[in-house]
Amino acid sequence: MRVGMIGLGKMGLSLTKNMLDNGIEVVGFDLATENVKAAEEAGAISASSLEDFVSKLGSTKTTWLLLPAGAPTDATIVKLTELLNKDDLIVDGGNSNFKDSLRHNKIVTEAGMRFFDCGTSGGQSGARNGGNFMIGGDDADAFNQYLDPIFKLISEKDGYLYTGAAGSGHYLKMVHNGIEYGMMQAIGEGFDVLESGQYDYDNEAVAKLWNHGSVIRSWLMELVEDAFSDDAHLDDLLGRMHSSGEGQWTLQEALDSKVPTPVIALSVMMRYESMRNVDANFTGKVVAAMRHGFGGHVVDKS
Amino acid sequence: MRVGMIGLGKMGLSLTKNMLDNGIEVVGFDLATENVKAAEEAGAISASSLEDFVSKLGSTKTTWLLLPAGAPTDATIVKLTELLNKDDLIVDGGNSNFKDSLRHNKIVTEAGMRFFDCGTSGGQSGARNGGNFMIGGDDADAFNQYLDPIFKLISEKDGYLYTGAAGSGHYLKMVHNGIEYGMMQAIGEGFDVLESGQYDYDNEAVAKLWNHGSVIRSWLMELVEDAFSDDAHLDDLLGRMHSSGEGQWTLQEALDSKVPTPVIALSVMMRYESMRNVDANFTGKVVAAMRHGFGGHVVDKS
Repeated sequence: MRVGMIGLGKMGLSLTKNMLDNGIEVVGFDLATENVKAAEEAGAISASSLEDFVSKLGSTKTTWLLLPAGAPTDATIVKLTELLNKDDLIVDGGNSNFKDSLRHNKIVTEAGMRFFDCGTSGGQSGARNGGNFMIGGDDADAFNQYLDPIFKLISEKDGYLYTGAAGSGHYLKMVHNGIEYGMMQAIGEGFDVLESGQYDYDNEAVAKLWNHGSVIRSWLMELVEDAFSDDAHLDDLLGRMHSSGEGQWTLQEALDSKVPTPVIALSVMMRYESMRNVDANFTGKVVAAMRHGFGGHVVDKS
Repeated sequence: MRVGMIGLGKMGLSLTKNMLDNGIEVVGFDLATENVKAAEEAGAISASSLEDFVSKLGSTKTTWLLLPAGAPTDATIVKLTELLNKDDLIVDGGNSNFKDSLRHNKIVTEAGMRFFDCGTSGGQSGARNGGNFMIGGDDADAFNQYLDPIFKLISEKDGYLYTGAAGSGHYLKMVHNGIEYGMMQAIGEGFDVLESGQYDYDNEAVAKLWNHGSVIRSWLMELVEDAFSDDAHLDDLLGRMHSSGEGQWTLQEALDSKVPTPVIALSVMMRYESMRNVDANFTGKVVAAMRHGFGGHVVDKS
């Protein structure tokens, strides 16, 4: 089997190495030549351009994208439809919004190729050693013939699921990430209560304990345990919680379907709150102004 | 080793069997004689009264309570201080509020005995086969001498932690449950979005997938997988989310410490919302009345 991998950053390179370990030949391309070099050193066949990349793939080419969602993925898919042949496969393994994937599916199928949207979970370690994949795509036969054998090799045991219709893979990954936001915020809040409470706990020991038989044992709690083992009170970190988009998209879906998801909603909001310059928080200015207005309460002036 | 177990319900009986399996003699007492009989059938020494129970324990008696929090635990601890001798141990393995445990600690230590508050996690299967325990208590020497050997036998590997000062075991269990509320609500909301969305997923297959290498793999997700395997859309269940108290207590602690915990707060609130007769929801009546007042909007009348 030979796969063409476009995007050899942290996830793409890890997945490339995973494929190579499992006897899959990989042709690698990335705009950054140092990334291509890293893939070549790992055993991949390097490509110097998308044209070169396509020429090095066999018949019924399987191309795999692990690119930032949005413009880079958009542009690459359009370009591929110009270079590939009828029946070739394009797998978007990145974090595209499922609505973009529906659009990509239309572009690709109208050009005569097959499109698959593949949500990739499990982090870098998963991509490297056995990932978790949720794959949508209208052509079930093509999935079974060309992709199933690959996913069998690169996934954690029972770690992939073909979910049918185009868009359903990225939709499922979106909801997965919405759940992830809520779980992470819950864990964060719990340790915040512990850190501010009347007892002096060993955070690492607590996380470790909770990973051995408690109801809340989870991979996220294992990651917390690792973090506390490096830095007992996370003094070296700022509390800024970046976000990439899936939490927000899940919330938008919930609003469209009128499904109450307060925990996912507040998890997203708290991420935004954490990114603010607190003193420039405009909500805060307005609330402080009203408190001053009705009660003469103190306001902190800049 | 011999332990006296008071409360032989689901958790107490499971823990009794766990102890018996591990060569610990158990004297069992419960107000319900059928529970005592079940413990006796499992190999425990039965007791017909608290007095009988105490008489069947050796010197430096270790007594263990797995009773409903509140009045039953309160009354039993007071009674035990009248029956036990100096230096005897009382372990409250139930879900007491840590403030009650501080009060119990005072009562017990003033009577000359030693008190330990033990949060128990891992559910019934954990209690039966290897539990998760967080134990507070001022007397570290007594913990090391009398209790550590027991916890070593009945816990999941690395599944117990002595957290020091009285109350700290139940405090930690309280926060554990607060986190649990948030994680559970996040998982529930995610599946609610899936169930209401445009794709038709196999809920069991999704939960199973997420347990094999995804970021959100967790014991709670395994329990969800089991539930969907029994009932694909949980048609047989009502969406009422009962709660016992720890989520609320965690929120009260957060309020006392002024720690923002929106996810835990909303998880608790959603439990209350789920228990309401929706049509008698007074908030709903007030909001509907206001919408009607300013906009002539429809109200549903009883």
